[in-house]
Amino acid sequence: MPHVNRDGVNVYYESFGQGTPIVFLHPWSTNRYIWSNQLLEFARTNRCIVSDHRGHGLSDKPAAGYAIGEMSKDLFAILDDAGVDKAVLVGNSIGGMIAMQANLDAPERVIGNLILSSGTNVGAETPPEAAEAIAQDWRGFFSGLLGGAVSAKTKKERPEISAYMEGCFRVEENFNEGVFFASLSDPNGVFAWNITDQLKDIKAPTQIIAGEEDGATTVIQNQMLADNIPNAEIKIYKDVGHFCQLEKPMDFNADLHAFLQKVA
Amino acid sequence: MPHVNRDGVNVYYESFGQGTPIVFLHPWSTNRYIWSNQLLEFARTNRCIVSDHRGHGLSDKPAAGYAIGEMSKDLFAILDDAGVDKAVLVGNSIGGMIAMQANLDAPERVIGNLILSSGTNVGAETPPEAAEAIAQDWRGFFSGLLGGAVSAKTKKERPEISAYMEGCFRVEENFNEGVFFASLSDPNGVFAWNITDQLKDIKAPTQIIAGEEDGATTVIQNQMLADNIPNAEIKIYKDVGHFCQLEKPMDFNADLHAFLQKVA
Repeated sequence: MPHVNRDGVNVYYESFGQGTPIVFLHPWSTNRYIWSNQLLEFARTNRCIVSDHRGHGLSDKPAAGYAIGEMSKDLFAILDDAGVDKAVLVGNSIGGMIAMQANLDAPERVIGNLILSSGTNVGAETPPEAAEAIAQDWRGFFSGLLGGAVSAKTKKERPEISAYMEGCFRVEENFNEGVFFASLSDPNGVFAWNITDQLKDIKAPTQIIAGEEDGATTVIQNQMLADNIPNAEIKIYKDVGHFCQLEKPMDFNADLHAFLQKVA
Repeated sequence: MPHVNRDGVNVYYESFGQGTPIVFLHPWSTNRYIWSNQLLEFARTNRCIVSDHRGHGLSDKPAAGYAIGEMSKDLFAILDDAGVDKAVLVGNSIGGMIAMQANLDAPERVIGNLILSSGTNVGAETPPEAAEAIAQDWRGFFSGLLGGAVSAKTKKERPEISAYMEGCFRVEENFNEGVFFASLSDPNGVFAWNITDQLKDIKAPTQIIAGEEDGATTVIQNQMLADNIPNAEIKIYKDVGHFCQLEKPMDFNADLHAFLQKVA
């Protein structure tokens, strides 16, 4: 702690608390601070691990290597370093993808999954004009995407959430242009990663949480996960976009407490 | 980064961004996550440093050494390690005390102070029955104190703020009984530290922010700082308790932006 080195890449993590382990996996372009409403609350009863994915926060930002499978391997390196056999995985967006991949790679290390606003093959329906907009001004494009990723109520009542998101991808030390384009072009990166045909092989208890106003990973995309992962349950939140843990933190925490009761 | 060792005590800090440095100093019993609405937002324009004070978070928790002067020395050790000559200090509660002490210890390293809900000699009016309640159940007592430290509006609309606070002092790895009592009994610790007569020697531009419903460090205590620190200004928030950066984050951020415009 707090860095684990895997194949020359330093990945940052921290751990608080004792009990059944939970790993919180943040969305692309953000960092572990997105879990500030969960980390200490759940550390009262559980061992809580938060990390910065490679390319993010205090972790290294290599020129390439942004396949979801690499991040799943990083997750296991963290568990090994922390002396954790298996954990509950709580993943938002790319964090959910890492969790799902980890279930395929080493199912024996997963107690259960809470997948918050995620998907697979999420870049499939990206319109061609998006590529040009990204090439011209990726930060401007990404800002627009994030604008559609929070609910109208959040925009009005909790503008600090969007301010945090904007800061995350505009601060070089947290996330940068190289990481953005290397992730985009990776054949198994955040937008291209496609495990549609393997969702049926995810056996751990899985709860999906989706936001009705999520423009980044839509209810349809989350519903597809729930329909194909055996016995997965889905809950859809009103007035929430892509970030339920920030937009309705107490409700999200209640759901996570209930999920832990069930699986751990 | 991310630990600096001073006289055998490891103190954790992290840094994001470039520009005029700001150090964010958290309240007693909490940790750097309290600045999640500020860190990435201000890192867009400034070098932002957040730390966990000794006794907190990822920093060491020695058996003794909790004088405010020790924490001021830790702050300078962080600045040295980070290669920072001088910084704007943003301190909440004990964080404000550390900032004020730093002004007395090395005024040439302070660009300005934003003191959020703080004071000096704050334990002076603690009723004698409090000591007994603390001895019997310090966490229960402290929970009550924190209950009075957020506004009625915050309690109703943002219960996750109190949940975060409760987690902070109930999770051993973040804060513990030894730190609590060692701080309490230190003749220059959080409750006994008294620089009333030296407030006049703080020369850096200083903005005080206080919450009208703050039961931990009252408006009167904050007003006393403003009255005695030369040229200090005070702003008092309605519907806010001890934690303006969480209770009204966008307003607080606007005030900090304005303060930076003025001093940096």
